[in-house]
Amino acid sequence: MKNFLYPKINPSSFMWVRPEHGVVSKVHEWIQPLSDMSDLERAKNAEVVILGVPLSRSSISASGASEFPEAFRRSWRGFATYNLDEDVDLAEMTVLDVGDVPMHVTDIGKCHENIIEASAAIHAHFLNSKVCAIGGDHSITAMMVKGMHQAKPAETIGILQFDTHFDLRDMSENGPSNGTPMRNLIESGVVEGSNMYNIGLHGFFNTKDLKQYADEKRVNYFTLRSARKKGIEETVLHCLDKLSSKVDTIYLTVDMDVLDIAYAPGVPASTPGGMTTAELLEGVLTAGKHPKVKAMDIVCLDPLKDTAVQPTVKLGTHIFLTFLTGVMLRQNASI
Amino acid sequence: MKNFLYPKINPSSFMWVRPEHGVVSKVHEWIQPLSDMSDLERAKNAEVVILGVPLSRSSISASGASEFPEAFRRSWRGFATYNLDEDVDLAEMTVLDVGDVPMHVTDIGKCHENIIEASAAIHAHFLNSKVCAIGGDHSITAMMVKGMHQAKPAETIGILQFDTHFDLRDMSENGPSNGTPMRNLIESGVVEGSNMYNIGLHGFFNTKDLKQYADEKRVNYFTLRSARKKGIEETVLHCLDKLSSKVDTIYLTVDMDVLDIAYAPGVPASTPGGMTTAELLEGVLTAGKHPKVKAMDIVCLDPLKDTAVQPTVKLGTHIFLTFLTGVMLRQNASI
Amino acid sequence: MKNFLYPKINPSSFMWVRPEHGVVSKVHEWIQPLSDMSDLERAKNAEVVILGVPLSRSSISASGASEFPEAFRRSWRGFATYNLDEDVDLAEMTVLDVGDVPMHVTDIGKCHENIIEASAAIHAHFLNSKVCAIGGDHSITAMMVKGMHQAKPAETIGILQFDTHFDLRDMSENGPSNGTPMRNLIESGVVEGSNMYNIGLHGFFNTKDLKQYADEKRVNYFTLRSARKKGIEETVLHCLDKLSSKVDTIYLTVDMDVLDIAYAPGVPASTPGGMTTAELLEGVLTAGKHPKVKAMDIVCLDPLKDTAVQPTVKLGTHIFLTFLTGVMLRQNASI
Amino acid sequence: MKNFLYPKINPSSFMWVRPEHGVVSKVHEWIQPLSDMSDLERAKNAEVVILGVPLSRSSISASGASEFPEAFRRSWRGFATYNLDEDVDLAEMTVLDVGDVPMHVTDIGKCHENIIEASAAIHAHFLNSKVCAIGGDHSITAMMVKGMHQAKPAETIGILQFDTHFDLRDMSENGPSNGTPMRNLIESGVVEGSNMYNIGLHGFFNTKDLKQYADEKRVNYFTLRSARKKGIEETVLHCLDKLSSKVDTIYLTVDMDVLDIAYAPGVPASTPGGMTTAELLEGVLTAGKHPKVKAMDIVCLDPLKDTAVQPTVKLGTHIFLTFLTGVMLRQNASI
Amino acid sequence: MKNFLYPKINPSSFMWVRPEHGVVSKVHEWIQPLSDMSDLERAKNAEVVILGVPLSRSSISASGASEFPEAFRRSWRGFATYNLDEDVDLAEMTVLDVGDVPMHVTDIGKCHENIIEASAAIHAHFLNSKVCAIGGDHSITAMMVKGMHQAKPAETIGILQFDTHFDLRDMSENGPSNGTPMRNLIESGVVEGSNMYNIGLHGFFNTKDLKQYADEKRVNYFTLRSARKKGIEETVLHCLDKLSSKVDTIYLTVDMDVLDIAYAPGVPASTPGGMTTAELLEGVLTAGKHPKVKAMDIVCLDPLKDTAVQPTVKLGTHIFLTFLTGVMLRQNASI
Amino acid sequence: MKNFLYPKINPSSFMWVRPEHGVVSKVHEWIQPLSDMSDLERAKNAEVVILGVPLSRSSISASGASEFPEAFRRSWRGFATYNLDEDVDLAEMTVLDVGDVPMHVTDIGKCHENIIEASAAIHAHFLNSKVCAIGGDHSITAMMVKGMHQAKPAETIGILQFDTHFDLRDMSENGPSNGTPMRNLIESGVVEGSNMYNIGLHGFFNTKDLKQYADEKRVNYFTLRSARKKGIEETVLHCLDKLSSKVDTIYLTVDMDVLDIAYAPGVPASTPGGMTTAELLEGVLTAGKHPKVKAMDIVCLDPLKDTAVQPTVKLGTHIFLTFLTGVMLRQNASI
Repeated sequence: MKNFLYPKINPSSFMWVRPEHGVVSKVHEWIQPLSDMSDLERAKNAEVVILGVPLSRSSISASGASEFPEAFRRSWRGFATYNLDEDVDLAEMTVLDVGDVPMHVTDIGKCHENIIEASAAIHAHFLNSKVCAIGGDHSITAMMVKGMHQAKPAETIGILQFDTHFDLRDMSENGPSNGTPMRNLIESGVVEGSNMYNIGLHGFFNTKDLKQYADEKRVNYFTLRSARKKGIEETVLHCLDKLSSKVDTIYLTVDMDVLDIAYAPGVPASTPGGMTTAELLEGVLTAGKHPKVKAMDIVCLDPLKDTAVQPTVKLGTHIFLTFLTGVMLRQNASI
Repeated sequence: MKNFLYPKINPSSFMWVRPEHGVVSKVHEWIQPLSDMSDLERAKNAEVVILGVPLSRSSISASGASEFPEAFRRSWRGFATYNLDEDVDLAEMTVLDVGDVPMHVTDIGKCHENIIEASAAIHAHFLNSKVCAIGGDHSITAMMVKGMHQAKPAETIGILQFDTHFDLRDMSENGPSNGTPMRNLIESGVVEGSNMYNIGLHGFFNTKDLKQYADEKRVNYFTLRSARKKGIEETVLHCLDKLSSKVDTIYLTVDMDVLDIAYAPGVPASTPGGMTTAELLEGVLTAGKHPKVKAMDIVCLDPLKDTAVQPTVKLGTHIFLTFLTGVMLRQNASI
Repeated sequence: MKNFLYPKINPSSFMWVRPEHGVVSKVHEWIQPLSDMSDLERAKNAEVVILGVPLSRSSISASGASEFPEAFRRSWRGFATYNLDEDVDLAEMTVLDVGDVPMHVTDIGKCHENIIEASAAIHAHFLNSKVCAIGGDHSITAMMVKGMHQAKPAETIGILQFDTHFDLRDMSENGPSNGTPMRNLIESGVVEGSNMYNIGLHGFFNTKDLKQYADEKRVNYFTLRSARKKGIEETVLHCLDKLSSKVDTIYLTVDMDVLDIAYAPGVPASTPGGMTTAELLEGVLTAGKHPKVKAMDIVCLDPLKDTAVQPTVKLGTHIFLTFLTGVMLRQNASI
Repeated sequence: MKNFLYPKINPSSFMWVRPEHGVVSKVHEWIQPLSDMSDLERAKNAEVVILGVPLSRSSISASGASEFPEAFRRSWRGFATYNLDEDVDLAEMTVLDVGDVPMHVTDIGKCHENIIEASAAIHAHFLNSKVCAIGGDHSITAMMVKGMHQAKPAETIGILQFDTHFDLRDMSENGPSNGTPMRNLIESGVVEGSNMYNIGLHGFFNTKDLKQYADEKRVNYFTLRSARKKGIEETVLHCLDKLSSKVDTIYLTVDMDVLDIAYAPGVPASTPGGMTTAELLEGVLTAGKHPKVKAMDIVCLDPLKDTAVQPTVKLGTHIFLTFLTGVMLRQNASI
Repeated sequence: MKNFLYPKINPSSFMWVRPEHGVVSKVHEWIQPLSDMSDLERAKNAEVVILGVPLSRSSISASGASEFPEAFRRSWRGFATYNLDEDVDLAEMTVLDVGDVPMHVTDIGKCHENIIEASAAIHAHFLNSKVCAIGGDHSITAMMVKGMHQAKPAETIGILQFDTHFDLRDMSENGPSNGTPMRNLIESGVVEGSNMYNIGLHGFFNTKDLKQYADEKRVNYFTLRSARKKGIEETVLHCLDKLSSKVDTIYLTVDMDVLDIAYAPGVPASTPGGMTTAELLEGVLTAGKHPKVKAMDIVCLDPLKDTAVQPTVKLGTHIFLTFLTGVMLRQNASI
Repeated sequence: MKNFLYPKINPSSFMWVRPEHGVVSKVHEWIQPLSDMSDLERAKNAEVVILGVPLSRSSISASGASEFPEAFRRSWRGFATYNLDEDVDLAEMTVLDVGDVPMHVTDIGKCHENIIEASAAIHAHFLNSKVCAIGGDHSITAMMVKGMHQAKPAETIGILQFDTHFDLRDMSENGPSNGTPMRNLIESGVVEGSNMYNIGLHGFFNTKDLKQYADEKRVNYFTLRSARKKGIEETVLHCLDKLSSKVDTIYLTVDMDVLDIAYAPGVPASTPGGMTTAELLEGVLTAGKHPKVKAMDIVCLDPLKDTAVQPTVKLGTHIFLTFLTGVMLRQNASI
């Protein structure tokens, strides 16, 4: 099958492996490139679709987050498809990798348009799939959500956000940079502030005017301290309950800077006093189980900053697989 | 206003920023160099005074802790003045940066004298300010306290110390090195052992004779294990209560090596099995709220050892801002 | 005393220090090279014997774990013999360092034989000592246990394993590599699967067929999640109770990759979502207290990958000293 | 004096030092910020004007070259104004630092416009000064030259380029990226191909079609091998002679990737087989002496990639000072 | 076409790119995987065949040279096929990448056998191709040459070696390690000592007994100093002349440690005082032009040690392409 | 033999190796610790005596040069005693390692006194040996020379210095720091300015007033450019001739910062445009051959800054061995 989404999406340069005897046990043997699929019907019903979004020119500080999609795929080799904690084998699901959104070197507006188009094309084509965008910086979230909105204009969208920051900066300062995705969505009317739920704010990493803007727009948020008091799982469930009573679709965005900087040496914007790995994994698993969570992204991870054994890249991949575990547990429960 | 403390203190080489429209939202827009202040009365009533103490030649092992004052100031750009957890804006307080104590390249005794003089001058001039010394290695603590004592000889002083070590080594070995500040203060009669409270000892990082000396001098200490059992906040409150019944002024010293080495990759003396970031921030906030805590320092952080995204430098700054949050919460509570 | 185990073991190139006044306070002043001991009787009754096993050619991925024995000894300088948490001084015990197993550059089978021989010789000679092997990769565990079995064929052996992995890979693939030690022991009949207890499995790091093999061979395991629910100490005690009712001797193997990768930046195979330092130390202390735990090893730590302040090397040494603390607490309790 | 070029140029955040006794001996004591100058006439006659151009979003690969202007200024502290080889003291010249071109985070077109405007303003104001642009990536060269052309439309411009590459890529692919500056100038009619002289091409770093384009446009070039055979100084003199017979003004552009990668560990695009440091310094000194060389730039140096002692940053600064030495030797010769 | 050499050789995991419009300009668009070739006749007549040999377990010190074949292929993207110095386009030749020799994890003897078999199969099949082995450590040279000998037993073989070392260590010490390939070939009777020519010895990096062995076996060598005096090109031509009068086939082996350590930060065994990049490139180009040089290898480059911009990996690839340039110049000259 | 110089000198912590069969081939098997020598007469006639001087607190910038003596000894393992270029085996000479000068942690004056005393003791005891001091920073040179002067007050001393700097800074600024050794010796009357010969000055690394001071004191110097024009060997011979006509003894000091920073990534004060490795080795070999050169040092090498394969540490050791080669060639020539 040719890549019918072409030219909106470039095939990835990663080389998938077909295991010799047909037994899949590692992630790189399981996830398949769209361009290789010959069974179009099976493709359309893939449980999960991955889209690489290698853009980080839009970051306020110099960032190599554009390199994460490639590092993400390369790390698959180190993960089994089988999850021992939950005793489920992800390989029972079909996961397609459609490749990367093509980027322009000097025209960031064009990059953003490409992301919107790619997102719209994927959401239009894969009606029942979970769409996972691998960033890139946080500016891509606004574009992914806009694309989803374009594809399904009748559906209202809500957002569950793990983040140390509001990401509600004024776009008139620096344009649609990585500090602005939530404001972008509010101002463009795609998502209402009251349909946004942020978990993980803490410390000195948001200016007061951003909080005031958030309050004005009725953005919901749980500081990390309050989420810990209530329990991470309970907090996430609370947000999902609220959201699912108000919107048709929920988009999950994981800004890796929500993690404490000790757990995320490859995330330049991470800070002291953030989430632990265990907390974030718990939160993402809970979100993955919810049927209305139809799309997600992982952003702001810069593999070029990581230490020698690549703890942050591995963690990014682990978060993705944990989301999928949630999806599968839900499926199994529904049968 | 000229720097009336000159020549005891060099102005910092950091460049402060005055925001264009007068709205302060980032730390580097807020903290002001003394040399720029024209309103002398306002200066004298600053809530907080920062003094850089770039000395690490006195460290037993080669150390770049002398570079922390500069790295500390440079990191301000990444912090808002607004604390979301407590909903307070530190920018309502006045914080002065008086610069760095001048150091001699080859005469460490002279360096130590300079610190004492600078500390005495500041404590004499800023009678109502919290004085924050940014080290440098732990030898500076003895000098800062001696200076405070010189300025206010009638007041008794107690110490609250977060540390993996006693820092009670014998000065006859290596002189007043970074292993000795507490002993230095005991032997010089400036602080009684019974007015010292250490939180954070653990593992194999203190020889038995130091513990025996501590017991002899009635130094008080809580191992990290016992502090965890009691609760960090409760332990700190207990120490502050005891101290405030016995002394006029409390000096808080934060040796960054109290942290588990996973949280402090830029602290050569940190160890496995130490405090988490969350625990230390809780302890410092509690101390900041106490009215008798009039001075503090942060020591033994070597920015040259930090990993790419500078987790330890950011944590050092976070600890400082957390202390100030305590100060402000107390002020607000008193009104 | 000449090294009577020669040529099976090379003396280490580390230089031990005899403190001037006979007062031992640091680890490098305390642990003694066998080749220096003149009192043979005292040597034979040493509480603990250390053996370096610098082999990592047998690792599936390129590894520098062969450098850990040297890094381990070099780090002693940073540790006191006195444990403040437990108020015991390890220096009351005699600990011998017999040196390193000699390795062949190109014949890994020969390396493995050398380890078996060295282990057998040590277990035959030091009948009452705890034998601690410092790896090296995990393939050495099978060899150390085989050597113990050779020396005392009448005794049944059980294994307590801290690990993120089963290490039950099929040897027909890659020979006795670091992924195979447990299977090697089962297949060679040295240890029964039902006498193996693994603590720490989690996430996506074991393929499904390994779990099936484990179940078939009745290998016992606690996922990290279940161990946390029960309590680490309780889980370890449970395993030790079960084992001590079934076997004569327990071998403890600590694969450093059981740790969360944030705590172990020098362990290439460590993963996100693993144990914290505090949890592992608690587990090892508990194991050290059990009288049937006669031997242990620490494996898969690659010092060449560590960050600047060597957090992982220090942690490896801390684990060893924590095991010894358990041994000593037991001794004191028995008196 | 206020910055009369504002708002086209931001003052630098670097802190200049006024030496206490008026004796200037280090570079950071000598170069002066424009915003501090009170003597406007003296300013206009400054021999040299520095402009920071912190743009690297326009690079094809992720680049931190935007950080070079700041690293450049910070490195001044390590350089004397006195050149011992030539026995001249640069401090006899006036050098102004006008600050950095303001950049937009997400609109690269706007960045490029800002550079053109800033260049035009500077060339219009400082009629007799050498203008030195500190990049940033190579895309800035086209903008700096266009600005010069705007300010002095009647003057023809020629280019002397040290580079491993032609930098003649097709702009329709990626817009005005770092691979295109020379083509940009040709296609916009600002500089004719026959008035471009490239020194340093070698190896496998230019595709054949670029050479064909170069030949078509009559771009002149000397491979490194041919330049070495002729002598670097002789080659440069030859190019300058040719140029000065054809154009009014010569612009020198130094792409740091002309250097062999062993000399430039902080230049991602540098290659094996390039120039030595000594050769490049010889070439730049020769160019500095030529009266028609009125402007220059240094580009594509990424300080974030440099090794610990910052060899590449220091080399960038050395190249700048060597150019100034040429300027001064010419001045002295003319007197 | 299936890989008819299977299972002796694994296809590489590198993803080749077919340029859209058929115009090849970069190396990764040009070199083709054997497994993709449908025109068997064209394959058999490929001018060059590449074989990856990812073995470094046989190194005396821990080494990551096994990672070079992958790093080598990944670096192709940064190289054009066009050589500007010589004005030739390598893309006019056919170059096949047959993939990597499969390695066993714990049985180094088996690895060595696999290399011999793979070499023999390639030399038997590609009768007119230059065979380029990409190591791996230097032990592979003995195996590659033995395989060539197996395939063509009637031909005598000579060796041209660029190396800082003799590589004549006694195999009885450590087996066929990376210090032994030349002795291995002498002792196995495959190559006579008098048919070996070593260029690049210098300093303190060979023990006296090795020199004595070399003299005994009539191995020829030029120290770097003598080669410089004579001229690198002249020295290489001299060796090739001598060899071609004595043997049927010449094997070129480039041990990257021949380079001065300043040029080879990713070669652990490189030393101060070695060759410059320019000298080695000159030597390899000269060798590539000689018709009797039928096979070559590049060994002992450890990409895990390289600095941030990967100077050594790029240099390894440059050496390979320079050899091919020699081959092509010869071809063109012969037409 | 006890260390009769005790307590002025601490035995090194390095472990020397006695080869099993008495055949010495590596440097660490050859150099012997004084404390092990039983033959006192042989010791006194050792051709060479090594003294470690681990002091870098006296550096103007934070430095780890104190770690070089240990890194130097550790690197011996990588060097043969046999020099292939000159066909001499250094193992025919006796070289003693007397250990390290003891340092005080906080009293630099005391450190300097210890160096003087140690130097005096060694020069008094080893009347015919070449004394090699391994620094440490450049401040130690003044102390080593003063000690030599104390031991032999009747002899006049001259200095041959390889350095990018004059090292003639005013001691009233920062005391006897690493910028002052030559001035220290002039002002203390130990060496006359006219008996100092500096080779290697270049670029912007000396302020004009230092040159004026040098001229005033008649210090002799050759810039690197002039030395290259004349030839390095010729320049060194010229300086040695001049010196030997005027003084009794010549002291050679090698400041590693004379090297181009590309060759010395572990020397923080090295600069672009300095010497190549080959040039420095040529210079040192020539100096080693001169009979009046009785002492030397190697300073300002910071192993903590070096890159992964330790090029600078290896180069430091190579320089030392090259000096010894000169000594031996002279001896052989005199026989």
